[in-house]
Amino acid sequence: MSLSIRNQIAGTVTDVATGGAMGSVKVSVEGGELTAAITKDAVEALGLASGTSVVALIKSTEISLAAA
Amino acid sequence: MSLSIRNQIAGTVTDVATGGAMGSVKVSVEGGELTAAITKDAVEALGLASGTSVVALIKSTEISLAAA
Amino acid sequence: MSLSIRNQIAGTVTDVATGGAMGSVKVSVEGGELTAAITKDAVEALGLASGTSVVALIKSTEISLAAA
Amino acid sequence: MSLSIRNQIAGTVTDVATGGAMGSVKVSVEGGELTAAITKDAVEALGLASGTSVVALIKSTEISLAAA
Amino acid sequence: MSLSIRNQIAGTVTDVATGGAMGSVKVSVEGGELTAAITKDAVEALGLASGTSVVALIKSTEISLAAA
Amino acid sequence: MSLSIRNQIAGTVTDVATGGAMGSVKVSVEGGELTAAITKDAVEALGLASGTSVVALIKSTEISLAAA
Repeated sequence: MSLSIRNQIAGTVTDVATGGAMGSVKVSVEGGELTAAITKDAVEALGLASGTSVVALIKSTEISLAAA
Repeated sequence: MSLSIRNQIAGTVTDVATGGAMGSVKVSVEGGELTAAITKDAVEALGLASGTSVVALIKSTEISLAAA
Repeated sequence: MSLSIRNQIAGTVTDVATGGAMGSVKVSVEGGELTAAITKDAVEALGLASGTSVVALIKSTEISLAAA
Repeated sequence: MSLSIRNQIAGTVTDVATGGAMGSVKVSVEGGELTAAITKDAVEALGLASGTSVVALIKSTEISLAAA
Repeated sequence: MSLSIRNQIAGTVTDVATGGAMGSVKVSVEGGELTAAITKDAVEALGLASGTSVVALIKSTEISLAAA
Repeated sequence: MSLSIRNQIAGTVTDVATGGAMGSVKVSVEGGELTAAITKDAVEALGLASGTSVVALIKSTEISLAAA
């Protein structure tokens, strides 16, 4: 399937922290690190753990910009 | 000011397209390209044009993940 | 009040899981199930529990599409 | 690929309206109609037009709830 | 109906700009001005124009914070 | 740095609740109170506690409107 989501960044999970409802997943990507906040269900459904290969998906309307 | 926004990716604007209300801004970053959809007002207020140095800001709750 | 939110889907809560700050609410709707991640405060303020009738509200800018 | 995006609703495009930067896509789904606001680039890249089969993707953190 | 949306700010529309798909609506509120980007359909459905009384609705997961 | 984020509202933190992954932060602002849901990491990185001066940042695409 092709996604309308324009921003797709490959990376590797480096850390997962979960609470009662949500999970915070750190992903190392080329040039830095991303943090994704997804549901705990999703963390478990995808079996996310340190070392898992993932693609970060970011809708364009969710990206803001800062300029000097 | 420090931002709660965990994901901050430096890059350079490569293209700007605007409509009546919104703008679509392409940004080259290490390892690829991002597209941000922001208001036309914001494009004009930041003076965004090809070559502008920017930082893409992405709240963690806006990042989804895909895994094999 | 009329909402600018274009996507309004009626359903019934089937499950609620809360953590220290957030809640994950499963809602059965015609044709499937939705999961909403809202604050724990909101879960409590609305008294959400299994069987509660709700309407899922989704802003258009938050919907991505996948196509074959 | 499995997506962390919990909400996936199959449907068919019924209308597409584009501007200079964005597109508004109406999708008929079981029980109603959804509207997605995505970039014009995405509309063109996916070749979206009336009759296209799609899946609407909605991150849980983007769903609010209303209750009586 | 009660909304799970925690942030509800009353105001008055001061300006509306629309494009082919989206609209940008400026709202004067106590202490300043907000800009909402909603679909052109929503602008028309709510009959938004300068002087319209509105309530701005903002899901908690969409608010970032900056601190000194 | 100038931000494309059009909505910036100054306030003071009045309450912080954290879970395993996320934090819910209440902020008193002119005319009312806002709640922001951000990652626990961000709460700790910014040292947010009751009395901290903050600016709430809200992308225009994240604001919906309600009208009578």
